Amino acid sequence: MEKVRIGIIGIGGMGTGHAKNIIAGKVPHAELTAVFDISAERLEWAKQNFSDKVKIFDDVDAFFQSKAFDAVIIATLHYDHPVLAIQALNHGYHTMIEKPAGVYTKAVSEMNEVALQSDKVFGIMYNQRTNPVYRKLKELIDSGELGEIKRSIWIITNWYRPQSYYDAREWRATWAGEGGGVLLNQDPHQLDLWQWTCGMPKRVRSFMSFGKYHDIEVEDDVTTHVEYENGATGLFVTSTGEAPGTNRFEITGDRGKIVIEDDKLTFWRLRVSEREFNRDFKGGFGSPECWKCEIPTPGENTQHVGILNDWVNAILHGTQLIAPGIEGIKGLSLSNAMHLSAWTDSWVDLPFDENLFYEKLKERIDNSTFKKTTGKEVTLDVAGTH
Amino acid sequence: MEKVRIGIIGIGGMGTGHAKNIIAGKVPHAELTAVFDISAERLEWAKQNFSDKVKIFDDVDAFFQSKAFDAVIIATLHYDHPVLAIQALNHGYHTMIEKPAGVYTKAVSEMNEVALQSDKVFGIMYNQRTNPVYRKLKELIDSGELGEIKRSIWIITNWYRPQSYYDAREWRATWAGEGGGVLLNQDPHQLDLWQWTCGMPKRVRSFMSFGKYHDIEVEDDVTTHVEYENGATGLFVTSTGEAPGTNRFEITGDRGKIVIEDDKLTFWRLRVSEREFNRDFKGGFGSPECWKCEIPTPGENTQHVGILNDWVNAILHGTQLIAPGIEGIKGLSLSNAMHLSAWTDSWVDLPFDENLFYEKLKERIDNSTFKKTTGKEVTLDVAGTH
Repeated sequence: MEKVRIGIIGIGGMGTGHAKNIIAGKVPHAELTAVFDISAERLEWAKQNFSDKVKIFDDVDAFFQSKAFDAVIIATLHYDHPVLAIQALNHGYHTMIEKPAGVYTKAVSEMNEVALQSDKVFGIMYNQRTNPVYRKLKELIDSGELGEIKRSIWIITNWYRPQSYYDAREWRATWAGEGGGVLLNQDPHQLDLWQWTCGMPKRVRSFMSFGKYHDIEVEDDVTTHVEYENGATGLFVTSTGEAPGTNRFEITGDRGKIVIEDDKLTFWRLRVSEREFNRDFKGGFGSPECWKCEIPTPGENTQHVGILNDWVNAILHGTQLIAPGIEGIKGLSLSNAMHLSAWTDSWVDLPFDENLFYEKLKERIDNSTFKKTTGKEVTLDVAGTH
Repeated sequence: MEKVRIGIIGIGGMGTGHAKNIIAGKVPHAELTAVFDISAERLEWAKQNFSDKVKIFDDVDAFFQSKAFDAVIIATLHYDHPVLAIQALNHGYHTMIEKPAGVYTKAVSEMNEVALQSDKVFGIMYNQRTNPVYRKLKELIDSGELGEIKRSIWIITNWYRPQSYYDAREWRATWAGEGGGVLLNQDPHQLDLWQWTCGMPKRVRSFMSFGKYHDIEVEDDVTTHVEYENGATGLFVTSTGEAPGTNRFEITGDRGKIVIEDDKLTFWRLRVSEREFNRDFKGGFGSPECWKCEIPTPGENTQHVGILNDWVNAILHGTQLIAPGIEGIKGLSLSNAMHLSAWTDSWVDLPFDENLFYEKLKERIDNSTFKKTTGKEVTLDVAGTH
């Protein structure tokens, strides 16, 4: 195989972006050969904008049976990611899903089981993992430069969205359509980067407001406290109702403090570790010598194109993925645990009860009385694009 | 009265500082005329360092009955502040207490009742209220420039203390001696400034570790989430175990965001309020125009001397105090509510049950098995300096 032939499911916002990148030659070892959508309008658009080499499908079974491609990108609504990924993998296609991995981990666990049995390359579009700033952070933590982590605080409130954003799509910010709000739609990257760099906590206590700043039924304001196995704590603060908001990630370790803000990484590096200083210093008032270091973060932030090239390389050459698909469950577990904690107003231990989460989500879908101001009723359509 | 004659109770660290400022003429309309301490060593030191005009007392009743002064500064251990303030006011002296107002609000409420009945000037040493940066913040909030508050986050983790700090005094960081850790000793200023600028929350949920980074029995790591009547939320994060730590106070309102860090106030000002933009903007993706403004904060940070002069002015001329003593209960209420929430692992509504807090504190004092590494046993001595 010289070039990986790509089929795309869902020619909406993200799917169209991926298609254009491939057509533009930004993923040199890939070519677009098929697309599938349930929207006649989008398929018509694809027909007029893509070359004749791209086969157009309006039937998902025909699409999967066609073998018109080697690998599938799934860019549908969240609920459909695991359902379609399972089908794609079972049909023997390499698979790339958009984030989040799904809406509830119960379905994502099933997807991961299929993926683990499969010999196909399964990736997830965690394009922020290509950001040199976060890659450097991970390297500084993994190499021990920061020392054992004591605290992490991510204030990620610069996801501002006005009401008209929510009104523009029927599925947006509904339990049935998205299964959540800012955590499911805006934060998957940060939730993944948080666990990617700082690990998974052992328990979660979350505080949420639903439709606080918008006429929506899901969360648009979240504060979450977490605790890790080693005693470290963490905070995740997010909202779509604050302008201009903040994106500031602070991680404190035994050897100092790192702050990522304005796409810059600053490391306040202690000359001796705090634990060592605490033990040896006898002067009462005093603190370890500290150097403010501006850390270089070389490399291009290749984003979506970078993740696609990485996936295609893995398909062609068996290289390790930057963002393996099965890791998508981690960020989603954080998100699900946060919801469960807020819904039950209590601690949630990880791993949490997947069935309980699904039950509580289902309750919200079933009991939803929310009507979009468009007047159209939103219904759960997990059949979605197939 | 041309000059206010001052008596000081407790010639320890803080008391000595106040004495020296007065003697140096930094409080021009005050003179030091008496001191009281229970330590013979400290009284001997006072005898040798102060002029003959300063009367030295080793008996608290003699001190209070002497009328050798018009006004009293109480700079003792925390537990004694309300007890001594009540005596001082009842003896007809103007009174200034060191922070915190006390250890538990039950005692502070009693002190406030006496103060409200008294015609004497009752102040508290909230010297950070003279900081032009926080004064400007308060002005921007009170004048409506920031709009209705949505969220406040104070990360105040730069109170680093090594073990030798705690080992240096028997009473330090014990339930019996201080009644708490970082919240009682280091944070009273921030707790006061937080409520002074953002108001009091209606409920508190706190997470604490006790002796996490030090061989102490009280808290040295705190994360607190609060909720306000208007739906706003807040976070207070503090520790004495992190180096170099952070002091960053972010307040988000309907008209933008203010961040105080490195003693600078920055205001990201929205040209139209977010609520207005949210209602009127129809474009889907978009956010209100925002100006990053560096706000001048003129004026000197007069600190302890400023608060003493302010108090003396109020005594001589009836002016309003920057830091009225009865306001000390607010910051302490936050601190007590945080402890109660952590101890009970649950929400605490404000106003909380003062008796329950006192009971739970007493339990910790009574059940303490903690021994200072000095080998000396720490005992509760609420009689303290009298």
